Amino acid sequence: MNYTTILGLIAGALTTASFLPQLIKIWKSKSSKDISLGMFIVFCFGVSLWFVYGILINALPVIIFNVITFILALAILTLAIKYRRA
Amino acid sequence: MNYTTILGLIAGALTTASFLPQLIKIWKSKSSKDISLGMFIVFCFGVSLWFVYGILINALPVIIFNVITFILALAILTLAIKYRRA
Repeated sequence: MNYTTILGLIAGALTTASFLPQLIKIWKSKSSKDISLGMFIVFCFGVSLWFVYGILINALPVIIFNVITFILALAILTLAIKYRRA
Repeated sequence: MNYTTILGLIAGALTTASFLPQLIKIWKSKSSKDISLGMFIVFCFGVSLWFVYGILINALPVIIFNVITFILALAILTLAIKYRRA
């Protein structure tokens, strides 16, 4: 594994992990009025396409990171809808 | 350009564009208490690495989408810090 691949894996891990603090925040606060539902709807759709793209080009990191990102973003979207009134 | 590349471009356009509704929302509402600063700090850092990765593998779509995403995410982070008290 060369340095470029390692950099790509770190980049993917960071952009995926970044959704965790938002998920924890909304989980604890039970408030979501400042969060854009539109963002997370479009983002989940885009990430699904990244997942299909990863399968088509046979790139395991693209597949794995996008599955995890999709789960996190969908969880945020679900809680954002649930706690919309605040 | 084959179908796989087109799919990747659509995926990139969607995940990048998804940040626009959040930027518009925070711009209009001037409220950001539900937004995780941690998410956007880690995300901006991750996207910077994706940008460097794009340069290293010489992939123009990766470079372009990550530049635009970085600008949008940094704008959201800046406004989120500015309007933190709400």
